[in-house]
Amino acid sequence: MAGLRTLYRSDPKDEPGLRTNFNVDYVIHYKIPPAEEAEAEASFVQMIEALGHVGFATKIKSTTPVCKIGFSVCGPPHPNEGGAGIMPKTGRWKHVVSLFPLHDHVFNSAWLKDWSAKYFLSDDDLMQIRDRFGEQVAFYFAFLQSYFSFLLFPASFGLGAWLVLGKFSWFYATVNCLWSVVFFEHWKMKEVDYAVRWGVRGVSKIQQPRPQFRFEREAVDPVTGELVKVYSPYKRLARQLLQVPFALACLVILGGLIASCFAVEIFITEVYNGPFKQYLTFLPTVILTIFNPTLSTLLTILARRLTDLENYDMQDAHQASMIQKIFVINFITSYVPILLTAFVYVPFGKLLVPYLDVFSLSTARLTAEGKPLPTKQWVIDPDRLTKQVIYFTVTAQIVNFLTETIVPYVKRKVFKAVKEVQTEVSGKSNEQKPTDSPEEAAFLKRVQNEAELDVYDVTIDYREMVIQFGYLSLFSVIWPLTACSFLVNNWVEARGDAMKIAISSQRPIPWRADSIGPWLSSLGFMSWLGSLTSAALVYLFSSDATNHYEPDGSPHRITAWALLLCLLLAEHVYLLLQFVVRGLMAKVDSPGLQRERAQRFAMRKQFLEQTFGNDVLATGRGEISVVGGLKVVQQEEKMTREALEEEARRLANMPVEERFWQRQRGTNETIQVGRNLISEMTTKQGHKTD
Amino acid sequence: MAGLRTLYRSDPKDEPGLRTNFNVDYVIHYKIPPAEEAEAEASFVQMIEALGHVGFATKIKSTTPVCKIGFSVCGPPHPNEGGAGIMPKTGRWKHVVSLFPLHDHVFNSAWLKDWSAKYFLSDDDLMQIRDRFGEQVAFYFAFLQSYFSFLLFPASFGLGAWLVLGKFSWFYATVNCLWSVVFFEHWKMKEVDYAVRWGVRGVSKIQQPRPQFRFEREAVDPVTGELVKVYSPYKRLARQLLQVPFALACLVILGGLIASCFAVEIFITEVYNGPFKQYLTFLPTVILTIFNPTLSTLLTILARRLTDLENYDMQDAHQASMIQKIFVINFITSYVPILLTAFVYVPFGKLLVPYLDVFSLSTARLTAEGKPLPTKQWVIDPDRLTKQVIYFTVTAQIVNFLTETIVPYVKRKVFKAVKEVQTEVSGKSNEQKPTDSPEEAAFLKRVQNEAELDVYDVTIDYREMVIQFGYLSLFSVIWPLTACSFLVNNWVEARGDAMKIAISSQRPIPWRADSIGPWLSSLGFMSWLGSLTSAALVYLFSSDATNHYEPDGSPHRITAWALLLCLLLAEHVYLLLQFVVRGLMAKVDSPGLQRERAQRFAMRKQFLEQTFGNDVLATGRGEISVVGGLKVVQQEEKMTREALEEEARRLANMPVEERFWQRQRGTNETIQVGRNLISEMTTKQGHKTD
Repeated sequence: MAGLRTLYRSDPKDEPGLRTNFNVDYVIHYKIPPAEEAEAEASFVQMIEALGHVGFATKIKSTTPVCKIGFSVCGPPHPNEGGAGIMPKTGRWKHVVSLFPLHDHVFNSAWLKDWSAKYFLSDDDLMQIRDRFGEQVAFYFAFLQSYFSFLLFPASFGLGAWLVLGKFSWFYATVNCLWSVVFFEHWKMKEVDYAVRWGVRGVSKIQQPRPQFRFEREAVDPVTGELVKVYSPYKRLARQLLQVPFALACLVILGGLIASCFAVEIFITEVYNGPFKQYLTFLPTVILTIFNPTLSTLLTILARRLTDLENYDMQDAHQASMIQKIFVINFITSYVPILLTAFVYVPFGKLLVPYLDVFSLSTARLTAEGKPLPTKQWVIDPDRLTKQVIYFTVTAQIVNFLTETIVPYVKRKVFKAVKEVQTEVSGKSNEQKPTDSPEEAAFLKRVQNEAELDVYDVTIDYREMVIQFGYLSLFSVIWPLTACSFLVNNWVEARGDAMKIAISSQRPIPWRADSIGPWLSSLGFMSWLGSLTSAALVYLFSSDATNHYEPDGSPHRITAWALLLCLLLAEHVYLLLQFVVRGLMAKVDSPGLQRERAQRFAMRKQFLEQTFGNDVLATGRGEISVVGGLKVVQQEEKMTREALEEEARRLANMPVEERFWQRQRGTNETIQVGRNLISEMTTKQGHKTD
Repeated sequence: MAGLRTLYRSDPKDEPGLRTNFNVDYVIHYKIPPAEEAEAEASFVQMIEALGHVGFATKIKSTTPVCKIGFSVCGPPHPNEGGAGIMPKTGRWKHVVSLFPLHDHVFNSAWLKDWSAKYFLSDDDLMQIRDRFGEQVAFYFAFLQSYFSFLLFPASFGLGAWLVLGKFSWFYATVNCLWSVVFFEHWKMKEVDYAVRWGVRGVSKIQQPRPQFRFEREAVDPVTGELVKVYSPYKRLARQLLQVPFALACLVILGGLIASCFAVEIFITEVYNGPFKQYLTFLPTVILTIFNPTLSTLLTILARRLTDLENYDMQDAHQASMIQKIFVINFITSYVPILLTAFVYVPFGKLLVPYLDVFSLSTARLTAEGKPLPTKQWVIDPDRLTKQVIYFTVTAQIVNFLTETIVPYVKRKVFKAVKEVQTEVSGKSNEQKPTDSPEEAAFLKRVQNEAELDVYDVTIDYREMVIQFGYLSLFSVIWPLTACSFLVNNWVEARGDAMKIAISSQRPIPWRADSIGPWLSSLGFMSWLGSLTSAALVYLFSSDATNHYEPDGSPHRITAWALLLCLLLAEHVYLLLQFVVRGLMAKVDSPGLQRERAQRFAMRKQFLEQTFGNDVLATGRGEISVVGGLKVVQQEEKMTREALEEEARRLANMPVEERFWQRQRGTNETIQVGRNLISEMTTKQGHKTD
C-alpha cells in the first residue's frame, strides 16, 4: 500500500510491477484453510472448470506461502446470471475471499493528476470513469459533479443572504426550497441523459438474481413460460412490515441516547456550576463518541438480518431495502440532535430544564452533605442552534473526510508492518518460484498488494452526499453559509473519492447501473421535509417585529395555530413548486433522450423501408405509421347513351349495395353529378327568390 | 328522429331504410350557401378529389332541395394526418357541416335490449362498444362500469355507516378516503389493461395535428430530420398563465353570484318574516337558474377563446387545456354552494347574518313607512348542509339525467314538426329522383335523419361522472347514503348514455384513445381534496362529547389550531395511504400487461433465434440477453519433458504479456498446478504446526 502511494510520485510506466496488467482481467483471491483442505480443493477444481466452461483462460499463482493465497487469473467472470456464478464468501464459493479486476495504474496516475488541477469535471471525464470503473461508480461521480455545480447557486445566494437577510429569513427558505426542487427534478432528467449516453438505459430492468434467495416452490412464469422460483409475497410483506418496529427501535435507542447526552450536556454546561465542571463538560461527548458508533453498528447488523429475512430474489430489491434501513439509522444520528435543539430545547426549554434537577438530586444523594449541587440561573442559549449546525456542516464534514481517507491508510500501514515483522520472525522471506521472470515477480507482488485493499463501496459515498443534502435542505435557514462549506468540501470530496478508488481500494468491478438507485427517493424525501422544517424554523426563530426573543432567550408570541398554518402553507407551496417545476422540466428535451429517439426513429424507418418499400409516411413526431387501407381502382367511363343503357341492363340483377355503388363510379363522375346538382339547386333557389 | 325511435320497437331488419348501410362508411354533410356558390363548388371539387386521392369511393346524393344538402358517401376518411384532412367547419372545409359514420341499427337495437336486462357490463360488452364506436367511447363505458362496480362498496358501507355511525363519522371519512385512493389507483391499472386488450396502448403518443395551429417559423426536427412548424413555447407559457386570472374571474363571478343568492336566500327564509315570503323564497332559485347557465356559457366561450389563444399544435393538448378550464367552471358551480354552507354559513353564521340587515335597510327605504322589514330571531339550521348535499346528489342527478335525454328529444321533435310545416307551406314534397330505387329512397331518408342528429361529445359524460365522484369524495361524510344514490343513478346513466348514442346522436367517429385522458388528474385532485374537506367537516360537525352544538346551532369549542392539525394529519394520512396503495398495486400484475410482455417476449425470442440461431439465453424475467464474449479455445497439452523444453525455447522471444499466458494454458493444467500448490502449502503448514 505504502508502495503504491510512493510509486505514484514517479511515473507508473517506469515501474516494472505497474507497467502492465499481463492481460489479466480479473483476480480471484482464494484461501485454503488447512482444516478444510479437501473440500476447498474440490471447490477450487469446480471453480476453474466453471470458468473454463464459460470461456475464460485461467492461471494460478501462489505468492505468500504462509497465508495460502492462490490467484486465478482470468477474463471477465460476470456475464449473465453472475458470470460463472462466483460470488465471494457465499455458498460453495465461501473460500473465495474476493474477486476483483486489476488497477490500470498508468490511467490512475494520470487521472488523479488531471482532476487535482481542474474545478469542474467534464462529461469526458465522467465517460473515462465509466470506461474504467463501470456505470455504477460513474453515476456517483456524475451525481457529485451535478450537485457540486448546483451548489454554486445556494453558496453565492447563501453568502448574500447571510450578509443582507441574516438568519431565519423566509425569503432564503423559499429560495432554498425552490432550489432543492429544481436540483432534484434536474437530476432526474440528467440521470436519464447519462444512462442514454453510456448505453445503459433500462439496464436496471435486467436484474441480478440473488444466490442467497430461498424459494418456496417453483411456478411457470406467465411471460416466458419458464420455471421460476417463487417466494410468497405475503410472507415477504409481513416481514417487510418489521421495518416499522425497526425504525421505532432505532428512534428509541439512538434518539434516547442522543436526548440523554443532550440533557446531561445542558445540565452541565448551563445549569451545573459545581466542581470538575471543565472535565464534566466532555462527559456527554465521550458517551456519544463511544455509544453512538457501537449502537449504530449493532443496529446495522440487525438491519442486515432483517433484510436477509425479507428474502429478496433480486439483488436490487435487497440492496434498496438495506439502504432504506441504513438511511433511517443515519437520519436519526445526523438530524435528531439539531431537531432536538430547534423544536424541544428552545421552545420548551423553560418548561423542561427544571426537570433536569433529577441529576442534581440523584448526585446529591451521593455527596456527603446531602445538599443539592450548586447550580446557576438557567437561560436559553439561542446561539446553540447555529453552533450545532456549524458543527455538523463544517467540523463533522472535515472529520468525516479524514476518517474516510486517512484512517484506512494508517490502519493498513500498521497492519502491514505487523505482518512483515511476523514474516521475519517466522524466518521466511517472500521467495518467488525460479520460473517467474523479474517482471512477473514484481507484477505478482503488486497483485498481492491489491488483494489486500478494501472493496470500494459506493453506497457509503452516496449516503454521505444524501445526508449532506439533507443538512442543506432541512437546516441551512439557520446558517445560510452551509452551502459555501459544502461547495469547498465537495471539491475535495470528489478528489478524495478518486484517490480512495485509485489507491486505497481494489479496482471496483464495473457493474452496470442506469441511475443512482434508491438514493433518489431519499433526496426527494429530504427536499420535501426541508419545506416543513424550514417553515417551522423561520416561524419559531425569525426576529421580525412581531416575533422576537424574550430577555431570557425563549421565543415570543408563538401560537400553535400559526405554526400549523405555516407548515400547511409551506408544504403546499412546496407541492405547487414541485408541480410547476416538473411541468416546465417536462418541456425541456434532454440531449440524450433526443438522440435515443433519433436513433430509434432511424432504425424503425430503415426497418419499415426494408419491409414495405418506400411507401411509408412519417408523421413527423418520431412515430411512423404505415398507411394501409383499400385503394379503389376506378375505371372512369364517359357518360354516353350506350354506356348508360348497358349500365341499366347490368344493374338489374345486382344486390342493392352493389347497385348503389355502380353509379358515380369515379371521382370525376361524382364531381360532375355534384356540379349539376349545385347549379340545379341554385337555379331553383334563384326562381324562388325572384 | 321520432321515426328511429318508433322503429326500434319493431325489428330494424324488417325496415327497408335500416336494414343495410349500402356499404357506406362515412357520410359528409355539405351545405352550399347561395351567396358563396362558386367558392363552395370549388371547395367541393377539392374535397372529392382529395378523397379520391387517398383511395375512397365517393357518391353524391341530394335529398332536400330547399336546404341544399349534398351527401358524399365514402370509406373511412380519417387515416393518418386527419385522413383526407377534412375537418368540418374549419378553414377550407367550412362548408362541411358534419362528417359521420352511419349507425348500424341492427346492432344498436340488440345492444339496447341486451343492456337493459343486465346489472353489470362484461368485458365482451365493452369490446363490442369498442368495435362499433371506437376506443374513446369504449373507455368512457369502461370507466363507468369500473366506477359502478366500485360504488358497491361505499354504497353498502355508507348504508351501514348511516345506520350505525351517523353523520360526520371520522371512521366513515377514513374508509371513504381509502376507497377513493384504491379506486383511483385501480383504475390507472385497469386503464392500461384495457388499452393493451384493445390494441391501443401508447396511441396517445401518436398525436392528431390541429389544423387551426398557427406557426411562427419552421425548424428541423432533431429526431426525424424533417421540417416542423414551431410556435414559441415561451409565448404559449405566457398565454397559459392567463388561466390563473381566468380561474380567479370564474371564482369571483360565479362564486359571487352563488354567495349573493345564498345570502338572499338565508335572509328570506331564515331572517325575513314579512309579506310575500312564500313567493320571495323562490327568488334566489330563479336568479340562480337564470344567471348560472348564462354566466357559465359566457365563461365557457371565454375559456374557448383562451384555449385558442394558447395555440396548441396538437389536438390532445388543446383538448386537455380546454377541459382544465371547463373543470374550473364546473367545480365552482357544483361545490361552492356546499362549501359556503359548511365553512362559512355554519361556523361564521352568527357573525355574518347581522350584516344581512343591509337587505332590510335597503328595502326599508322603498317601503312607504320607512320602517325596517319584520324579521324573526335567527338560528343556524344545522340540517341545511345535509339537505343541500341530498339536493346535489339526488335531485340534481335526476334533473341532469332528464335534461340530458328527454330535452334533446323534445327539442328535436318540435324542430322537426316546424320544418315539416314549413316544407308543406312552400308546397314542395320530398321528391326523389326517378333513378332511386325504393330501398335507396328509404336509406337516403334515414341518412338525412341521422345528419340532423347531434354530435356525441364524450367529454360531457366524463365531466358528469368526475363531478359526481367529487361529491362522493368531498362531501359524502355529510350524508353517507350518497353512494347508494349514485349506484342507482349510474346504472340508469350507462343505459341512458347508450340510448343517447344509439338514438339521439350521430354515430361517433371511432377515435382511438388509450386512457380517459385529462380526467384522470381531475379524479386524483378530487380524491386528494376529499381528504381535506372530510377532515374539516368531521372536526367541525362531529357530535362527539367534546364537540357538540350549542343551543343556537353553532358548533362548539372549535379552535383554529385543532382544525389545522386535523387538516395536516388528514392530508399526510392520505399521502401515506396513497403511497402504500401504490406500492401494493405495483406488485399486482395486470392480465393485459402480462399478455403484452408475453407477446413481446415471444417476438424477441423468435427474432433473436432467427438472427443468432438457438445460442440464446433467457434470463427468465421477460428480458433476453445474448451472451457474447471471448471463447478461448484451449489446446490441452500433456506436461511432458519434451513439451516443456520446446516451450522454453518458444517463450524466449515473446512479449511479457504473452509469455505470462503461455504457461497453464488449459483448465486441466491450471487445476493440476493448483493441486500441486495446495498440497505443497499443506505440507509446509504441517511441518510448521508439527
